[in-house]
Amino acid sequence: MLKEAIYHRPKDNFAYAYNEKTLHIRLRTKKNDIETVYLLYADPYEWVNGVWQLNRAPMVKSGSDDLFDYWFIEVVPPYRRLRYGFELTAGSETIVYTEKGFYNEAPTDDTAYYFCFPFLNKIDVFHAPEWVKDTIWYQIFPERFANGNPSLNPEGTLPWGSEEPTPTSFFGGDFEGIIQHLDYLVELGINGIYFTPIFYAPSNHKYDTIDYFEIDPHFGDKQTFKKLVDLCHQKGIRVMLDAVFNHCGYYFAPFQDVLKNGNNSKYKDWFHIHEFPLRTVPRPNYDTFAFVEQMPKLNTENPEVKQYLLDVATYWIREFDIDGWRLDVANEVDHQFWREFRQAVKAIKPDVYILGEIWHDAMPWLRGDQFDAVMNYPFTNGVIRFFAKDEIRAEQFANIIMNVLHSYPANVNEVAFNLLGSHDTPRILTTCNNDVRKVKLLFLFQLSFTGSPCIYYGDEIGMTGGQDPGCRKCMIWDESKQNRDILEHVKKLISLRKTHPALGSRGNITFIDANNETNHLIYTKTYKHETILVMINNNNKNIEVTVPLSLKGKRLTNLWTNEQFAVEAKTLRANIPPYGFLLYQVEN
Amino acid sequence: MLKEAIYHRPKDNFAYAYNEKTLHIRLRTKKNDIETVYLLYADPYEWVNGVWQLNRAPMVKSGSDDLFDYWFIEVVPPYRRLRYGFELTAGSETIVYTEKGFYNEAPTDDTAYYFCFPFLNKIDVFHAPEWVKDTIWYQIFPERFANGNPSLNPEGTLPWGSEEPTPTSFFGGDFEGIIQHLDYLVELGINGIYFTPIFYAPSNHKYDTIDYFEIDPHFGDKQTFKKLVDLCHQKGIRVMLDAVFNHCGYYFAPFQDVLKNGNNSKYKDWFHIHEFPLRTVPRPNYDTFAFVEQMPKLNTENPEVKQYLLDVATYWIREFDIDGWRLDVANEVDHQFWREFRQAVKAIKPDVYILGEIWHDAMPWLRGDQFDAVMNYPFTNGVIRFFAKDEIRAEQFANIIMNVLHSYPANVNEVAFNLLGSHDTPRILTTCNNDVRKVKLLFLFQLSFTGSPCIYYGDEIGMTGGQDPGCRKCMIWDESKQNRDILEHVKKLISLRKTHPALGSRGNITFIDANNETNHLIYTKTYKHETILVMINNNNKNIEVTVPLSLKGKRLTNLWTNEQFAVEAKTLRANIPPYGFLLYQVEN
Repeated sequence: MLKEAIYHRPKDNFAYAYNEKTLHIRLRTKKNDIETVYLLYADPYEWVNGVWQLNRAPMVKSGSDDLFDYWFIEVVPPYRRLRYGFELTAGSETIVYTEKGFYNEAPTDDTAYYFCFPFLNKIDVFHAPEWVKDTIWYQIFPERFANGNPSLNPEGTLPWGSEEPTPTSFFGGDFEGIIQHLDYLVELGINGIYFTPIFYAPSNHKYDTIDYFEIDPHFGDKQTFKKLVDLCHQKGIRVMLDAVFNHCGYYFAPFQDVLKNGNNSKYKDWFHIHEFPLRTVPRPNYDTFAFVEQMPKLNTENPEVKQYLLDVATYWIREFDIDGWRLDVANEVDHQFWREFRQAVKAIKPDVYILGEIWHDAMPWLRGDQFDAVMNYPFTNGVIRFFAKDEIRAEQFANIIMNVLHSYPANVNEVAFNLLGSHDTPRILTTCNNDVRKVKLLFLFQLSFTGSPCIYYGDEIGMTGGQDPGCRKCMIWDESKQNRDILEHVKKLISLRKTHPALGSRGNITFIDANNETNHLIYTKTYKHETILVMINNNNKNIEVTVPLSLKGKRLTNLWTNEQFAVEAKTLRANIPPYGFLLYQVEN
Repeated sequence: MLKEAIYHRPKDNFAYAYNEKTLHIRLRTKKNDIETVYLLYADPYEWVNGVWQLNRAPMVKSGSDDLFDYWFIEVVPPYRRLRYGFELTAGSETIVYTEKGFYNEAPTDDTAYYFCFPFLNKIDVFHAPEWVKDTIWYQIFPERFANGNPSLNPEGTLPWGSEEPTPTSFFGGDFEGIIQHLDYLVELGINGIYFTPIFYAPSNHKYDTIDYFEIDPHFGDKQTFKKLVDLCHQKGIRVMLDAVFNHCGYYFAPFQDVLKNGNNSKYKDWFHIHEFPLRTVPRPNYDTFAFVEQMPKLNTENPEVKQYLLDVATYWIREFDIDGWRLDVANEVDHQFWREFRQAVKAIKPDVYILGEIWHDAMPWLRGDQFDAVMNYPFTNGVIRFFAKDEIRAEQFANIIMNVLHSYPANVNEVAFNLLGSHDTPRILTTCNNDVRKVKLLFLFQLSFTGSPCIYYGDEIGMTGGQDPGCRKCMIWDESKQNRDILEHVKKLISLRKTHPALGSRGNITFIDANNETNHLIYTKTYKHETILVMINNNNKNIEVTVPLSLKGKRLTNLWTNEQFAVEAKTLRANIPPYGFLLYQVEN
């Protein structure tokens, strides 16, 4: 047994409260190295005649990545306290792994050897809004979704879709346009909209805020926005706004005051200014987002700034009843600010969703005291490399997905924001080299995965475009120019996800085959009594696959065609066309 | 290279802000597996002509434990942002380790491969009071230190030291007694006192609080306590009290109210009550500390309870100017409570010390938002097993110490509360089987180690006693019955620690020899320009050791005898008597 590969630390993704009564414990070992793992556990104070009363329960292998196997068990400690270790066996060898190291036998003279989950305090449990698990998001870049009120058009607005967007072009998208197309979204089946910024700002993307308390006049006014939110709610659609709190825009009044009054400005401590007077060459002498002089970084440690931004955060919830905040560049803002942010917004709307933009490992923000979720770019990266770019084969893809899932607690995964692309990435059809079949597989995987999927506007009708501004073209409303094939595919997947909970967020994914030669994947999604079998052929050839599951005598329903059949042979064999898939519900 | 052994995660002890400008990065690899490690790093936005501008700097091996080597580097990122990876070399093989896995060459087309420390926000930096690094603590169990005012004696008080303590005996120790002996403590050289609980409570240990706002009348009144604190401060001694917030005593008024009024009590939500009426057999039907019915667990999630306890915490700081809180059973109270606790006490006294009682891995409480330190029992465990009990040999001891140091950030280690024993453990002389030489080595190691050492009252004069109540005997004031040999040893070590910063908290420890055969240890402590060489013979034979350092031509000062000499030979050889030691200052 490779001791160096064995890892556990009693917090984060390795030991966490799944709910108010249940702990999840995970262990990492070298891939294919260990045959069985038992959890040794007890209440730390459960002694009888000087002997600590250890229990023993088998752990299951919940997945593997490139190098490691992961083991899992759920425990409900009667007094909400737990000390525990691991008993690992391979062949004739058995070792016990504890916080103090490795032993040949489990010590019972002292609890101090063991890992400790000292007390399951309810208030510390990671707790995200339940509704997110049933939400399918749709991301709207308001300047490009629909122009419903041309009287609001900025100067120089171009005719809708008349040309390729540039970093500075305007096409007049607005709230009225969105309102006019809400039924399209209802029909698509989504039930959450994430809007990129809508506050008063000079650019077309609005990430350079001038006033956080005002709607950008080219999008509409507060009354129209209120109407939009109300209509969304009537149609069962939640609304999430984009909070750009890491930095403001150059024309944000406090920054303008500093530019004007320098060291005498009462706002000088709202920013991170290295020296006066301010300059921008060779680089800004004040902290900015990246090195962008137009985006001065806000000093979120300053109590005045903090209060201002928390007022912004609560204002839009209180006055407009929004349902979530997506936090731009969330990783560069201090943790203390986010803790207070959470307290403030949850106090007025306990089930508001807090979603951080973090592209890397985000565990430190997902411990229950800050965010409910992050934009799951490690997921995005994996699916794009496998389905869109053919950079990796099936086995590595399964490893990446298992690695992503084991990097976070299960209750975090259930509300992760799983995107295929956004206003910050090339569009998926373009990345797929215009191969519609690949786009369909991307949607299939995303919409059958654990977490809360998000569709970037227009991807569902096969819009194209490279890195921004290319990916920010005007939404195509002329149905003859929409790819109705993709649209129908997405609608069907959404509808299936809604009617089959196992396909949804709560469903547990298990890869049962990931074949590098044929590049096919077979996995199950299970929830309660439902099992769904998914087979994907990410290959330009027709293939025949054998399902390594014992299904003899079971009835299967093809969820795509509604055909039913019973498995008669010992094993199920199936033909899958190039870049095709099969979706079976397995009779219980 | 064993990839499975390579570990890094960009937070906690592996990547942290050491101060407002400096990041510390650590990497773990298999022991003796890797020859060189370089950090590859850059500002995430530092691109020139489409190529990310990676820097490269060597990491040093900062220590090893049983299985692993640890590598270290300090970085000051100019814009407080960092993306980074590791380049590892062994023989002719070089690999690059990133958040996305292993590569043969460092990718520079995207920063997303790399680990991320997104922004060094000042408010998130772990920041403990600076004075703690210069503090030598002395723990007083007030009922047993000195009886200065017999008129306060509880009924049935026994004559001072007249018999072995039982769990219920009283000897009349009080504040007046402590005041009368403050000069003894000044002469000893300590400059911090940690008092076990002093609030109104029925037991002799006072962990069963009746009233958190009242001094126990057998110890004195508030005026006397105020006088005690003031005198301590005049003599340069800080005062830390014991906060028992996990649970109260059975006679705490709110719990009595619940016992009396059951479901109608307005205090019923102050506790975790499973059902009414309360009962205690077979086990309490309310949460308690362990299964102790006399210690009902407080519901620290209840805002009323929280406010009450925060009022307690701030009251004793505001009114009596205490300098620290030691938090009893801190690990079983919710994290959210401790976050608010920190905010509350630091708001009124920014340099107050917050010390949690946690016996196991305590990283989740030491991230900067909760505690300044924990009682360092993993250190205690290591030194007792090596010096006192001879359970482990020199090499394993060095491994344990290095493991402890690499489990936490360096700024956490610098204020760790390093104890040899307490009111909860047998006394060290007893554990050492009455071998004074071993006790001296224990004190030598403790008082030359990184962190804030604490002496349990009486250990410095060779008091004996097993697990409590044996370890809670009355302090011996008759000098003829004190072990003056140990006392002088401790005084000398304290005095050396104060005059030689390298011996103190800021000094960096490096084991240069840990020999299992002779059971000797050689290590250096270094700080700025000072290096101290410590040699310990934890063996009942005289040994000759060779120092594996190039010291030729250097002048050495024996800090114990003040003798000076120059090293003439290529290597330094030294004789060390059984359980003896040498302490040299090495000329720079």
